[in-house]
Amino acid sequence: MRVLLTGAAGFLGSHLVDRLLADGHHVVGMDNFLTGQRANLAHVAHEPRFTLVEHDVAQPWPDLGPVDAVLHFASPASPNAASPYGYPNLPIETMLTNSQGTYYGLEYARRYAARFLLASTSEVYGDPQVHPQPETYWGYVNPVGPRAVYDEAKRYAEAMTMAYHRHYGLDVRIVRIFNTYGPRMRLDDGRVIPNFIVQALRHQPLTIYGDGSQTRSFCYVDDLIEGIVRLLHVDAAPFPVNLGNPDEYTILELAQTINRLLQNPGGLRFEPERYLEGDPKRRRPDIQRAKTLLGWWPKVPLEEGLRRTIEDFRHRLHAQSPD
Amino acid sequence: MRVLLTGAAGFLGSHLVDRLLADGHHVVGMDNFLTGQRANLAHVAHEPRFTLVEHDVAQPWPDLGPVDAVLHFASPASPNAASPYGYPNLPIETMLTNSQGTYYGLEYARRYAARFLLASTSEVYGDPQVHPQPETYWGYVNPVGPRAVYDEAKRYAEAMTMAYHRHYGLDVRIVRIFNTYGPRMRLDDGRVIPNFIVQALRHQPLTIYGDGSQTRSFCYVDDLIEGIVRLLHVDAAPFPVNLGNPDEYTILELAQTINRLLQNPGGLRFEPERYLEGDPKRRRPDIQRAKTLLGWWPKVPLEEGLRRTIEDFRHRLHAQSPD
Repeated sequence: MRVLLTGAAGFLGSHLVDRLLADGHHVVGMDNFLTGQRANLAHVAHEPRFTLVEHDVAQPWPDLGPVDAVLHFASPASPNAASPYGYPNLPIETMLTNSQGTYYGLEYARRYAARFLLASTSEVYGDPQVHPQPETYWGYVNPVGPRAVYDEAKRYAEAMTMAYHRHYGLDVRIVRIFNTYGPRMRLDDGRVIPNFIVQALRHQPLTIYGDGSQTRSFCYVDDLIEGIVRLLHVDAAPFPVNLGNPDEYTILELAQTINRLLQNPGGLRFEPERYLEGDPKRRRPDIQRAKTLLGWWPKVPLEEGLRRTIEDFRHRLHAQSPD
Repeated sequence: MRVLLTGAAGFLGSHLVDRLLADGHHVVGMDNFLTGQRANLAHVAHEPRFTLVEHDVAQPWPDLGPVDAVLHFASPASPNAASPYGYPNLPIETMLTNSQGTYYGLEYARRYAARFLLASTSEVYGDPQVHPQPETYWGYVNPVGPRAVYDEAKRYAEAMTMAYHRHYGLDVRIVRIFNTYGPRMRLDDGRVIPNFIVQALRHQPLTIYGDGSQTRSFCYVDDLIEGIVRLLHVDAAPFPVNLGNPDEYTILELAQTINRLLQNPGGLRFEPERYLEGDPKRRRPDIQRAKTLLGWWPKVPLEEGLRRTIEDFRHRLHAQSPD
């Protein structure tokens, strides 16, 4: 299989590159390194079955020859306004990557009668009024709120993907990805697991906003990639499929686990709750469809996933500041 | 004031052209006549303060010189799948008109430090769970449903408009337009008022789907245009403003009124209810914000608006088939 993958230098994209190569496929990776990292692809630079194309997906795509599948994973994805890589600081790029990027990807798939897989997100559920969220739930998103540049752009991308399916009969798949963590996340990504691990590795107190009782569910990247590959290969699935880990942990439990694994003497530091308008108070996937359709569910326990992530972060943090 | 108006040959666009010219402004109208009609602009062809540019708003815009305001009214807008002008038959064009069209319009406004006004829609509320709908309600829209090509594209357009306001400080306005009717609607538009008037003028029975108890609210076009002009000129309004008529009528009342005005001997014909997935069972604007901000509310009674619309339809239907 020859696969065209956008966002190949990103956190999820680069893990997908590894998996597709390991499965024997040819991969053409596209990235403009707006938020992707060259280091994520350094180890495949000399792999003959991998080609890298430096290109902004929101600009008309060059013809890279026939492919069997187009996987659209390019997009800023961190909601953190304090990070230069967070989508609040890249609002127009985020919107165009998901609108025009999806359009060009769908046109590319149509030209070569290829399968199209869209990386969507649990953010399409917004601040959900239903728990857990099945794929049939329409979500509750503020179209003019500060998070809309990501949430609405992903909803638009889903709508356009379905339009190509309905109008042109294109073979499409949509994966709604819930919180995922693992090696290669940016050290300054700004989301809670990278933040905690970096603080713990530096022996600093972990910063908890509020009392830490808010819950989140976290899926280890290998589990997620397994689900995506299964969705790519399954016979037909023209409707969105949730992939994520339904196990809920409080932020306090997460912090305590990381401090324990790293024997961090820094402890915890509680700060007043930050509330970004539209920030979901709770989100948890209903994964019944993935179970039925793909025989998939997460296997890696949180502690095991955290250990592997910590190893990677330790290595990179040390390389960054070898004092 | 020099105004750049997209969708100038459309139903609302052409009425806006007339009003802006009457107010003494210069108007550059842009349209690609995908759903707009040349006849709607025939009467201003020799008006020196009006210029027509034939261009698809989803393609990069030519430089048409400095303007004080960009008004983005281009888009297919009829949900009727039976009409060649309905957005179900123009799904990709509808999405790109609202994503790329809005992007190019915002960039144009930014280049010339102009005001930007987006024609949004009550469809952003989807199948609302709240009645009537205030602008603060986030809506309930199916991102992968058949209506998403319009609804999600408009939500995307709103999100991008707000992003330009937040990120670049652009002076923006968003009007959420509820059902509007009046002269110049396409005879084959497919929405209920044109359908009924054409049937009644042909002395045919008016087709009612279901028992006719479903309600709709209808705003006469002159009222709507007055609200839009006020919103354009008001000092600041960076948030959406509903414009529509809060008076609710049942489809049965509407049909009976039209039959009475036209003394239609055809009567009514009841057909089984058609249900397009996501079709709202009820929608009605909360117009408190427009009242407070603009001192605006609808003034033209339904019967009076219908009389004026019927005159226009009679004239055009006769010109079409003068037998």
